[in-house]
Amino acid sequence: MSLLVVGSVAFDAIETPFGSTDKIVGGAATYISLCASYFTKDVQLVGVVGDDFPLADIEHFKSRGIDIEGLQIKQGEKSFFWHGRYHNDMNGRDTLVTELNVLADFDPIIPESYKNADYVMLGNLTPKIQQTVLERLNKRPKLVVMDTMNFWMDIALDDLKQTLKMVDVLTINDEEARQLSGEHSLLKAARVIRAMGPQYLIIKKGEHGALLFHGENLFFAPGLLLEQVTDPTGAGDTFAGGFIGHLAKTGDLSFENMKRAVIYGSAMASFCVEKFGTENLLNLNQDIIMARVQEFSKLSHFQI
Amino acid sequence: MSLLVVGSVAFDAIETPFGSTDKIVGGAATYISLCASYFTKDVQLVGVVGDDFPLADIEHFKSRGIDIEGLQIKQGEKSFFWHGRYHNDMNGRDTLVTELNVLADFDPIIPESYKNADYVMLGNLTPKIQQTVLERLNKRPKLVVMDTMNFWMDIALDDLKQTLKMVDVLTINDEEARQLSGEHSLLKAARVIRAMGPQYLIIKKGEHGALLFHGENLFFAPGLLLEQVTDPTGAGDTFAGGFIGHLAKTGDLSFENMKRAVIYGSAMASFCVEKFGTENLLNLNQDIIMARVQEFSKLSHFQI
Repeated sequence: MSLLVVGSVAFDAIETPFGSTDKIVGGAATYISLCASYFTKDVQLVGVVGDDFPLADIEHFKSRGIDIEGLQIKQGEKSFFWHGRYHNDMNGRDTLVTELNVLADFDPIIPESYKNADYVMLGNLTPKIQQTVLERLNKRPKLVVMDTMNFWMDIALDDLKQTLKMVDVLTINDEEARQLSGEHSLLKAARVIRAMGPQYLIIKKGEHGALLFHGENLFFAPGLLLEQVTDPTGAGDTFAGGFIGHLAKTGDLSFENMKRAVIYGSAMASFCVEKFGTENLLNLNQDIIMARVQEFSKLSHFQI
Repeated sequence: MSLLVVGSVAFDAIETPFGSTDKIVGGAATYISLCASYFTKDVQLVGVVGDDFPLADIEHFKSRGIDIEGLQIKQGEKSFFWHGRYHNDMNGRDTLVTELNVLADFDPIIPESYKNADYVMLGNLTPKIQQTVLERLNKRPKLVVMDTMNFWMDIALDDLKQTLKMVDVLTINDEEARQLSGEHSLLKAARVIRAMGPQYLIIKKGEHGALLFHGENLFFAPGLLLEQVTDPTGAGDTFAGGFIGHLAKTGDLSFENMKRAVIYGSAMASFCVEKFGTENLLNLNQDIIMARVQEFSKLSHFQI
């Protein structure tokens, strides 16, 4: 089923204890759509770049079967740029440079062919823009997943709460869940946040795994142990791409299948962090993905 | 099968964001033996207290079926005392007062009736004392589990490494595993630590769960989500008590049963942290324990 992805398509410069990169291609919608393209061939991208964006990377989206009709290219303007440095433990990071450039006045134009999308993934963006995307569709999608971050809780909380009423699934990290809810216990935080609108809540805990809440149901997917975590950039977006990609592929919104979607998202994120940027998302295949998914079963299953 | 437990039996004064206690009974061997008493009725305690230790608490050990022949009571001396304050996120803590008292020159005398113990739990103590306990036994136990902490890595690393060669299972937390191994990746850290002696390694990640390593096998038990974490004191000791208690009860050292033991340990630790000190370990029963263990299955099981 068709999957509309909206979010940043951008340049990142990344420093970690294990190395650094010059400007490489990143952005939420980049990670989400590349990842989702391993699950469904009907990915529709909405975003904006400047004319500094490499043609080769646009061709790469196309070669993965991603529809880029909704990717605006602004002549004479520059793409969004983020420069960040991760702390030694890789769990925190400092932003050194943020240049909004084309994102400063991004108007998410939805091509007619996208307007009946079955699944929508709202990558991290101004809540107002996320809301605008939903308002411009012809029909309520089967499922809307929204990612956001603490920055919008700090400066656009009212808009964020408005957008939360329009989505089915919210993905945020544990610290953001605590900030948004004012509760330290994640059980209590989840109750508060779900009362704001989303039926489903995913709390991402980085290397410590991810939690899925729905009604009285609760599921935990562990973080896979990796020999080397090189660069956490895009892990959350890749998780979201695998999660919604699996749902768009299967069309099954049962809790059992949602659990599987969390595992697929976690598996894809584990590939993402092993190398810088999107490098490790470029040459996967079904066998490699399934082998990694099986590692989650092996790691966490037991019989009492 | 018989389970020998050695460790501190002590007073704690605890401050958390949710309240504080006067001097209450704590200590590694207290938590371990109380917890293990729900699994086996053959728990043998080795420790030392002063004559300030309440008779009622000694009676309580007895009422739980714990053999206290090995608990030395030093007339005219005072019990070990620790006063600590947990940070707001409950993940860190500061030690405000440590009074070694009777622990300063603790000589772990092993009663004859303990010397053929099948299972031995070395609670956190000077590595030299842990080693002495093993040297005083008549035979190599079926399984020796050792807990330790960063403090001994800082001031008694050579002794610690010597003791590590004599044990089967080491339990430490993630930061300690990184310190002891010099590796950030827990996969790499586990390899380095197991090369130091212990066949099995358990890395405790607090609210984020616990990992069991053995050969090529790896198992992860999630942390249960709780409405309220009141006091993390003794959680690691309680975990160890449930882990070795289940093994001593079943006598089965297969990896499948070790996994179960990690789940039992995690379940018992989840009770421990809900109330101050040992309060929540005093009135459990098999039904309550099994219901909690089932929550772990529900939380983490999925079908691909």
